[in-house]
Amino acid sequence: MPTIGIVNVNTSSSMTQTIVDAARTVAAPDTTVIGVTPATGPESVETHIEAALSQVGVITAVHRRHTAPVTTGTPAIDAWIIAGYGDEGREALQELVDVPVVDITEAAAVAAMAVGDRYAVVTTLDRTVPMIRGRLQLAGLHERCVSVRGTGLGVLELEEDPERTDRIILDLARQALTDGAEAVCLGCGGMAGRAHELTARLGAPVVDGVTAAVGIAESLVRQGLTTSRTGTYAPRSPKKLTGFEELEIP
Amino acid sequence: MPTIGIVNVNTSSSMTQTIVDAARTVAAPDTTVIGVTPATGPESVETHIEAALSQVGVITAVHRRHTAPVTTGTPAIDAWIIAGYGDEGREALQELVDVPVVDITEAAAVAAMAVGDRYAVVTTLDRTVPMIRGRLQLAGLHERCVSVRGTGLGVLELEEDPERTDRIILDLARQALTDGAEAVCLGCGGMAGRAHELTARLGAPVVDGVTAAVGIAESLVRQGLTTSRTGTYAPRSPKKLTGFEELEIP
Amino acid sequence: MPTIGIVNVNTSSSMTQTIVDAARTVAAPDTTVIGVTPATGPESVETHIEAALSQVGVITAVHRRHTAPVTTGTPAIDAWIIAGYGDEGREALQELVDVPVVDITEAAAVAAMAVGDRYAVVTTLDRTVPMIRGRLQLAGLHERCVSVRGTGLGVLELEEDPERTDRIILDLARQALTDGAEAVCLGCGGMAGRAHELTARLGAPVVDGVTAAVGIAESLVRQGLTTSRTGTYAPRSPKKLTGFEELEIP
Amino acid sequence: MPTIGIVNVNTSSSMTQTIVDAARTVAAPDTTVIGVTPATGPESVETHIEAALSQVGVITAVHRRHTAPVTTGTPAIDAWIIAGYGDEGREALQELVDVPVVDITEAAAVAAMAVGDRYAVVTTLDRTVPMIRGRLQLAGLHERCVSVRGTGLGVLELEEDPERTDRIILDLARQALTDGAEAVCLGCGGMAGRAHELTARLGAPVVDGVTAAVGIAESLVRQGLTTSRTGTYAPRSPKKLTGFEELEIP
Amino acid sequence: MPTIGIVNVNTSSSMTQTIVDAARTVAAPDTTVIGVTPATGPESVETHIEAALSQVGVITAVHRRHTAPVTTGTPAIDAWIIAGYGDEGREALQELVDVPVVDITEAAAVAAMAVGDRYAVVTTLDRTVPMIRGRLQLAGLHERCVSVRGTGLGVLELEEDPERTDRIILDLARQALTDGAEAVCLGCGGMAGRAHELTARLGAPVVDGVTAAVGIAESLVRQGLTTSRTGTYAPRSPKKLTGFEELEIP
Amino acid sequence: MPTIGIVNVNTSSSMTQTIVDAARTVAAPDTTVIGVTPATGPESVETHIEAALSQVGVITAVHRRHTAPVTTGTPAIDAWIIAGYGDEGREALQELVDVPVVDITEAAAVAAMAVGDRYAVVTTLDRTVPMIRGRLQLAGLHERCVSVRGTGLGVLELEEDPERTDRIILDLARQALTDGAEAVCLGCGGMAGRAHELTARLGAPVVDGVTAAVGIAESLVRQGLTTSRTGTYAPRSPKKLTGFEELEIP
Repeated sequence: MPTIGIVNVNTSSSMTQTIVDAARTVAAPDTTVIGVTPATGPESVETHIEAALSQVGVITAVHRRHTAPVTTGTPAIDAWIIAGYGDEGREALQELVDVPVVDITEAAAVAAMAVGDRYAVVTTLDRTVPMIRGRLQLAGLHERCVSVRGTGLGVLELEEDPERTDRIILDLARQALTDGAEAVCLGCGGMAGRAHELTARLGAPVVDGVTAAVGIAESLVRQGLTTSRTGTYAPRSPKKLTGFEELEIP
Repeated sequence: MPTIGIVNVNTSSSMTQTIVDAARTVAAPDTTVIGVTPATGPESVETHIEAALSQVGVITAVHRRHTAPVTTGTPAIDAWIIAGYGDEGREALQELVDVPVVDITEAAAVAAMAVGDRYAVVTTLDRTVPMIRGRLQLAGLHERCVSVRGTGLGVLELEEDPERTDRIILDLARQALTDGAEAVCLGCGGMAGRAHELTARLGAPVVDGVTAAVGIAESLVRQGLTTSRTGTYAPRSPKKLTGFEELEIP
Repeated sequence: MPTIGIVNVNTSSSMTQTIVDAARTVAAPDTTVIGVTPATGPESVETHIEAALSQVGVITAVHRRHTAPVTTGTPAIDAWIIAGYGDEGREALQELVDVPVVDITEAAAVAAMAVGDRYAVVTTLDRTVPMIRGRLQLAGLHERCVSVRGTGLGVLELEEDPERTDRIILDLARQALTDGAEAVCLGCGGMAGRAHELTARLGAPVVDGVTAAVGIAESLVRQGLTTSRTGTYAPRSPKKLTGFEELEIP
Repeated sequence: MPTIGIVNVNTSSSMTQTIVDAARTVAAPDTTVIGVTPATGPESVETHIEAALSQVGVITAVHRRHTAPVTTGTPAIDAWIIAGYGDEGREALQELVDVPVVDITEAAAVAAMAVGDRYAVVTTLDRTVPMIRGRLQLAGLHERCVSVRGTGLGVLELEEDPERTDRIILDLARQALTDGAEAVCLGCGGMAGRAHELTARLGAPVVDGVTAAVGIAESLVRQGLTTSRTGTYAPRSPKKLTGFEELEIP
Repeated sequence: MPTIGIVNVNTSSSMTQTIVDAARTVAAPDTTVIGVTPATGPESVETHIEAALSQVGVITAVHRRHTAPVTTGTPAIDAWIIAGYGDEGREALQELVDVPVVDITEAAAVAAMAVGDRYAVVTTLDRTVPMIRGRLQLAGLHERCVSVRGTGLGVLELEEDPERTDRIILDLARQALTDGAEAVCLGCGGMAGRAHELTARLGAPVVDGVTAAVGIAESLVRQGLTTSRTGTYAPRSPKKLTGFEELEIP
Repeated sequence: MPTIGIVNVNTSSSMTQTIVDAARTVAAPDTTVIGVTPATGPESVETHIEAALSQVGVITAVHRRHTAPVTTGTPAIDAWIIAGYGDEGREALQELVDVPVVDITEAAAVAAMAVGDRYAVVTTLDRTVPMIRGRLQLAGLHERCVSVRGTGLGVLELEEDPERTDRIILDLARQALTDGAEAVCLGCGGMAGRAHELTARLGAPVVDGVTAAVGIAESLVRQGLTTSRTGTYAPRSPKKLTGFEELEIP
């Protein structure tokens, strides 16, 4: 009975709800999905500064939830999903908690590679393209990626006119097929919930990183796998963290 | 309620049972796991010739099961797992059936990369090392692989003295950690079922491709994703297949 | 006095003849070229399923010819060429026989890289593009390949209207030059025999894999080089091969 | 007359002084070097959590210094150096300020590649190895790196017994030469100042990232080059940054 | 007080002057820049033959200058810059002299990568594109290069109509931004001196390899770094050099 | 009836003879092999300076032979082989002559990859290792190379004690097999003629670049392929070549 925590990377609780809703549509019947919204940070993450500031809120929120007393209403989290596409943060959470952590950028790539030879990513602003490409490269999942394309839409604009958003995404997705992609990832946590309809309209698999991450998180839990502590994620030595004392990170 | 078919790549039905047993330990409560053994082919797959001959039996077995009438006792298969480590075959099955197909070599790499920075594979005979490396390269999952190491044990030898087998695997796994791996994949379908105990003894995650594949297969089913038909897996044109008429592949 | 065997990958004996004719135009005066057609398999190989089924026929045909008694009319084969562009099969044949085996996909790339900085491949159906790219990647010959482009023509269509076929190939070859290619490979065994005229019309080298393979095969024979048996092509252990007993592969 | 700001990534002002001292030994006669220490963050950065927390302090410190009124005593900064080896942060600073930003990890690699064919990095704890390798990969400077090796010494231990530290570094540096390195980078800002003596003892160039960065920063200033605003470092849109209001980042 | 020698790769002393003038605009106040023109070789270097012939003149000119008696008027050279874009020659000079040697192709890439995520090169004739790409690949600096584009202008044509030259360069530079470049390198030593104005007109950093090289050369001098003698640049054994006796290279 | 010219890269005519002798052992019965020794340059090529100086002699020698009047005793050359392992020069010759040019470094790699999964190179001095690796990388043939190892023997030492030379080569070749190589290239033109015996002693294919190049050169001639003139090897524009007037290169 896996309990999956999903941490949003921005402070928008409505976006957290969108993400959790999408996650629940694909969770196994015995899986519980719990959403967490950071108390601090940017209202959307689209730049390197925002990604940096976002991380502190994400770490804090996960730390608090993960160290909260387990009660009937607040079950222990068995795995975390970090719902920022192309953002940093997975590695820090892997250090922080004793359960698996799954990144939606990576999960989307894994699902896309399972259903097509090469894949593409359609994301928000062009400026995030190098951030996403960088994450995929670091994750060793970039080789089969033919392109990362920006829609020019900001994260917060996605919901303004959903049909226009879908049309713009579809346009780029079709170009991606021409690039040689056979599947397309939605490059933003805020695009969660659109994959089904877009798949139908595109005629090729459209992958949502949030729903892709749920199955991987469940799977790691059921396999009993947890983050390796033999290398870069070894336990930290206690150390003075000026300004973050309340975090109580050992 | 996903129904997952697992096709063994050799003709050993006892190995099929080992694989199915391992898969069931990690399946979701509403998942059904069904094992299939090819009627023709080698009793174990360790060479390029054997991999080639094995494919025909795998294709035939999956085609028959997949086109069999759906009854209470023989439910429709929602996703297939091909349980040959480093073997060819995933691509042909993706063409053959209308549901997702997951390869255990790739699934193991995905799980290992989720719980460690770099990973290694410990397999059977040294001669299979280039086959496994090749599959990981083609799958775009090789970049974070530090080494693929052979135990020198044949597939059919694995069961002869399980404790000795475990010791040999552990020895190589420890060397892999020294190479920089933080997680280790068991490079043979016939090693299914050993991951838990080996993880405990190694002190680092040991991943079994069969159990890793179950969650990915379930996840693709729950996301409603199927193989893209826009490129290399487009429907085949009918064509004369001399000697394989009984296959009735369109 | 090298005797070179060329095995076609499909069951079309007229295509075998086209291939052998092309090979003979470039063979050394003391070289004998012998064509072999599989008795089973698809009439053309354009998909992963067909590639898989084709392999059994190729292995069987080569095994029979290679183990046939040497007589005046049936001289021993000194090297084999496998004439499937982008298909699997070379590795299995390398295990099977004690003489060198040359793949036309690889031979074409070698010749193209000898006469131009970067090269492209023009092939049949788009769906074979990933198969060809995959073979070149596995062979470590992909780095200087700028593109693999499909004409949309099926293998069996190539001969229907040869002038139209040439025009379509030339169109794509010209686009390939724009991509940065300086030489172009004909990506199908069935295109054998067209390289000369296409070179003249394109104004840049057009390479036929079959003719490229002949010289490499002769060269390996004259150097006395045979497949290494120290690693992945080591001798196989005898093993039960259900359904392939008549193959008598040890 | 370039004024170069160097921001330490940890809260140790004595380490800032070490860094500034090293920088001044190589600065041009008309260059001013100014050190900045973050007010918040870890006392040393060795883990992903610490790297994340460190970034906020670095951004804040640079922002304050960069937007401070220019006076005789506080001249405008013409370029920034971020003195964390393998840490994130360069990209966020590039967004933040209108002058060039240089990362010591990258600067060290550039200098090492200027004086040897391949290079290695000798760093502190093993756990930082993947962080450094990741930064070099993202920076496109990893190809000529043969190895990144950890001394097992924590950042704060480096100063405890300098001669022992040097001996341990030299041991690993000699192993790196055996790996094929011809130059060795000191993989920690806290190792600044040791390069000269270690070069003499090793008999091969030992590069300090801090001193390597000074010349690149000066050079960018003298060339009048500043961070491109056409892509990933385009100006940010104003956005609510809960909890970071005092940062007054537009 | 670094003294930097810049060796032109062609025999045009007016181009040497252009290069030296550009270098002086960015040199530190205590730096002396000295230009050297080979006595033999091609008047411009645009082909592999010309690159080969050029090298002898470059080696000879540097050897003579470097072994000339040091006087007030002819100070010792502390570092050399080789001003051929995409040409061979750096490695031979590194063997030849006991001070650092900097290549402008590499220096431009380093500067471009410091101010943008990915970069492009705009060069002279299309035929030099593979030479430049090859140098960047060998230097391990090609990964972030999105394209190398030729203007079709010969080296000696660049000065004929400077405004037309600038317009052509700008056209290609704009296309490069569309390719995903955020900074553009001027791919010819003869383009020195145009970077400032082109940066303003393009709205993105345009990098001149000559000016980029000056700071790196100064920096190596101030760090006291010299070419490693432990590997490929180890001292040569004396050897008979027929036809080059007057070179007096030991 | 191909006539193959082989140009040695050093001035040792006895080494030219060794090379020509080796070439003749594998040439087709209708092939003529002609050796050419440069009149100027180093007596052996082991460093970057020597490689640079060698090129001028190689270009001059090939130019003279290639433009000499064709007579019965001096037949036209149909293809050139450049017999320097890891040296530059192939590209310049490709520009210079209108017939194919084959490099022994590349030819050896092609042959080794035809008979084994991965290969290694055993060469002379360690300092040449990066030169060889660089040539293989530029040629796009390095991916399957597991290692390049130096024997520490100078080119001119190879003949001093042939049995000792063979023992040293064999030692390194055996280490290369342990690295994962299945075939080994002899990394020096001066090692020509030893491949057969070393293959027998090693128990794995040992490849001589000179003999490997003969078949590729013959093959290009028989296919009628010549160097592409559409890109980097386009005809040169006439240009002043100070000091090389007697070369009469247009």
